[in-house]
Amino acid sequence: MSLKLTILGCHSATPRTFAHPTSQFLEINNRYFLIDCGEGTQTQLRKYKIKFSRIKHIFISHLHGDHFYGLIGLISTLSLLNRQTELHIFGPKGIKEIINLQLKLTKSWIEYPLYFHELTSKKSELIFEDKKVEVFTIPLKHRIYTNGFLFKEKPKERSLNIIHIKKYPEIEICDYQNLKNGKDFVKENGEIIINNILTSDPPPTLQYAFCSDTAYFEDIIPLIENCDLLYHESTFLEDKKDLAKITKHTTAKQAARIADKANVKKLLLGHYSNRYKNENLFLEEAKPIFTNTELSFEGKEIKIPSKY
Amino acid sequence: MSLKLTILGCHSATPRTFAHPTSQFLEINNRYFLIDCGEGTQTQLRKYKIKFSRIKHIFISHLHGDHFYGLIGLISTLSLLNRQTELHIFGPKGIKEIINLQLKLTKSWIEYPLYFHELTSKKSELIFEDKKVEVFTIPLKHRIYTNGFLFKEKPKERSLNIIHIKKYPEIEICDYQNLKNGKDFVKENGEIIINNILTSDPPPTLQYAFCSDTAYFEDIIPLIENCDLLYHESTFLEDKKDLAKITKHTTAKQAARIADKANVKKLLLGHYSNRYKNENLFLEEAKPIFTNTELSFEGKEIKIPSKY
Repeated sequence: MSLKLTILGCHSATPRTFAHPTSQFLEINNRYFLIDCGEGTQTQLRKYKIKFSRIKHIFISHLHGDHFYGLIGLISTLSLLNRQTELHIFGPKGIKEIINLQLKLTKSWIEYPLYFHELTSKKSELIFEDKKVEVFTIPLKHRIYTNGFLFKEKPKERSLNIIHIKKYPEIEICDYQNLKNGKDFVKENGEIIINNILTSDPPPTLQYAFCSDTAYFEDIIPLIENCDLLYHESTFLEDKKDLAKITKHTTAKQAARIADKANVKKLLLGHYSNRYKNENLFLEEAKPIFTNTELSFEGKEIKIPSKY
Repeated sequence: MSLKLTILGCHSATPRTFAHPTSQFLEINNRYFLIDCGEGTQTQLRKYKIKFSRIKHIFISHLHGDHFYGLIGLISTLSLLNRQTELHIFGPKGIKEIINLQLKLTKSWIEYPLYFHELTSKKSELIFEDKKVEVFTIPLKHRIYTNGFLFKEKPKERSLNIIHIKKYPEIEICDYQNLKNGKDFVKENGEIIINNILTSDPPPTLQYAFCSDTAYFEDIIPLIENCDLLYHESTFLEDKKDLAKITKHTTAKQAARIADKANVKKLLLGHYSNRYKNENLFLEEAKPIFTNTELSFEGKEIKIPSKY
């Protein structure tokens, strides 16, 4: 399993016993990311048995309370649990000041290294990268500065075509890594054997796009095109299309239109307004436009197998 | 019913699904107070069907996260609910800066009047008073500046002794309020009828003392003496007496000793460390020293009838 997303909360605005604000836990290519952290996220993490120690990077989309009021509590709890490893917070400018002021006034000394990566750019940028994964921002259109996030597996190595390689006894095992990296083989006499005779294309990489909160915003389409999974907010149904426009949110139908235009593989709806008691209505509105739509709900797990 | 206390959370440190941090809702003499506001308090208020509109005064004992991390979320939710009436926050210096910074950075405009009453005194002081109730601080001994709170019904009026009053035809109905207020009656000829011939003592008033978090601290005894209900933290049992001393918390046995020395009517334990799985152990430790001890638990209601 190469991608697993766990929904910890998927409702908008005020938390209730059975309606938690936005938070998701993502496992992609053996890396773990917490996305948004509404009030009560730490309790949800415990409920769904997600080990706190796995969280090393937290991405906050924007500074509305239902997306980050649980962050200070989680940071404090990690300290109480005697965490030693680094924690990286990615979020809009201001988040460092909010957290640090509270830590100072509560006289909480965080023993583990806590790093803030404050975001200000209105253009998509690479904000995290390691050997296996890259994370890019997806600038969204909301009432305050907001980013979605695109989580991408790093391009994998080319697959060796051993039958063809064996035809060239001068290619030794120590050359294989160069071939995997796409390099041509150069014989001692200067003759070149081009790489794609010796290897085949790597399998495509998995991509998850998280887009909340935002108005209907077609500018994101080039950034999320062909992704395997798109979470797109759908705070309202079409009956509140005008309210969606005023508050810079999206209807389920509009979210489906984005999914369709971006040719994603699967759409996941969420960030439902508490005014709707029957969430199936979101699905009914989206499916005629984009068939492979699913509802998010608390505790839902979506697994997408590796393309190897 | 003149005093009703609802326990919204009574565990220390990190919140869990069935262990919420400190928060209590108090109704005394038809006044309503929220005491402490750990993460998730707004969800607990909904769960126990306490109307948000009743909350006009919130008292925060100290700036440790398990006592106030839910405050910003509650303040924001009241705004989303279009609250118009005043909200008063009483708490240690710094609380205003924490809340205001978050409101500023989240661009949340609070429409209702929000007043902060920051506390700095190390002596007990009257911090709230209206016609029916007074609230005093109870300075506690903890790792950071901390106050408990004493909620007192205002002294009631003296009861008219109509049989005796009727013996003096010169006393008219318009004089009754003066008699209720304790004044003597002066005849036209200057003769004085002393008040306690005409009235009897008012019934005693109800008092609730909230004391969390604190080390064993006998200085509080004169402040809470004879109160009807004492909530006293008992983070630990005697097996962790040394840890209680280091962290400036109390054991159940020590809490019972305070209750006994202060001659309170009833003791309520709480703020349990999550390390203890069986909370009855707290009761077993306290009862031999103070018989009328009860455990707090989430959703518990304690009702004390008026003494009229």
